[in-house]
Amino acid sequence: METFDTIRTVLAVRSFKDTPIPEPIIQHIVEAGRLTASGGNSQPWHFIVVRDKETLRQLGQLARTGPYIPQAPLAIVVAMDRNPLAISDGSRAIQNMILAAWSQGVGSNWVGYNNLTEVNPLLGIPEEVSVLAILPFGYPAEAVGKGQKKRKPLGEVAYKERWGKPFE
Amino acid sequence: METFDTIRTVLAVRSFKDTPIPEPIIQHIVEAGRLTASGGNSQPWHFIVVRDKETLRQLGQLARTGPYIPQAPLAIVVAMDRNPLAISDGSRAIQNMILAAWSQGVGSNWVGYNNLTEVNPLLGIPEEVSVLAILPFGYPAEAVGKGQKKRKPLGEVAYKERWGKPFE
Repeated sequence: METFDTIRTVLAVRSFKDTPIPEPIIQHIVEAGRLTASGGNSQPWHFIVVRDKETLRQLGQLARTGPYIPQAPLAIVVAMDRNPLAISDGSRAIQNMILAAWSQGVGSNWVGYNNLTEVNPLLGIPEEVSVLAILPFGYPAEAVGKGQKKRKPLGEVAYKERWGKPFE
Repeated sequence: METFDTIRTVLAVRSFKDTPIPEPIIQHIVEAGRLTASGGNSQPWHFIVVRDKETLRQLGQLARTGPYIPQAPLAIVVAMDRNPLAISDGSRAIQNMILAAWSQGVGSNWVGYNNLTEVNPLLGIPEEVSVLAILPFGYPAEAVGKGQKKRKPLGEVAYKERWGKPFE
């Protein structure tokens, strides 16, 4: 899908078909994370690609806001080295992965926010590495309304030359 | 440009032609920011679109790592409400804007990191809003090596099912 169309139409998906995601698409998603720019090119990320049903079930139990994770055929756990730019760098990588997936018809959603310490022992992640998010990936179970996003109007968030002068 | 190709090829651009960016492309870039997903859909961002030469010159002086900003025909100043997810939400919006631009042949680079307090009085931004970044945008002055990124190999950043088991 063309880049701006992907950005324009991508929506959070929380209900998945159990259709497996083809291997080349999974590779693209992981590559989209790996290739992201980061502060000082430090690449402070680790992506754990989970397809095991039992692990997905446990991730769904550990993530308070992600009980639907086990429905997805795939989840990527995003773990970050602790450095001052990690949240920012990890967020950019997550955005890239969600867009790469959506452009191939695969939906996702950001689950958790640096509050997933119980995932460390489950996946053998060292204590000094922080789990920023779990991203379940799968084909949407229901059609998602393309481009129907609830967002503030342009004039409220974009200004021309100076604060307060609406950009049109 | 197709989404994954955009993600794969985008590189930081620090040297710009003075060719103006067509209005529809500027609109796409700003829309890419506005349409970004955010925690609790709080949309805590403000985008100040700067084309005034004198303002660009002053931004280049204020941003220690962005002396090249005045070369660019456009800069977007990204200012965030102070909330716990602002850095993450703002980083996702910045990623979207950089990708939307690159897919149309327009380069950019992330300048500054929440350390641009002198930009507030210059643009009339309230003190309680924090300038996360300045993004200069323009057509690259030199050809940028497409896809030649320095990144860790896949096996070092992606694992299969558990930490430490390389994903291939």
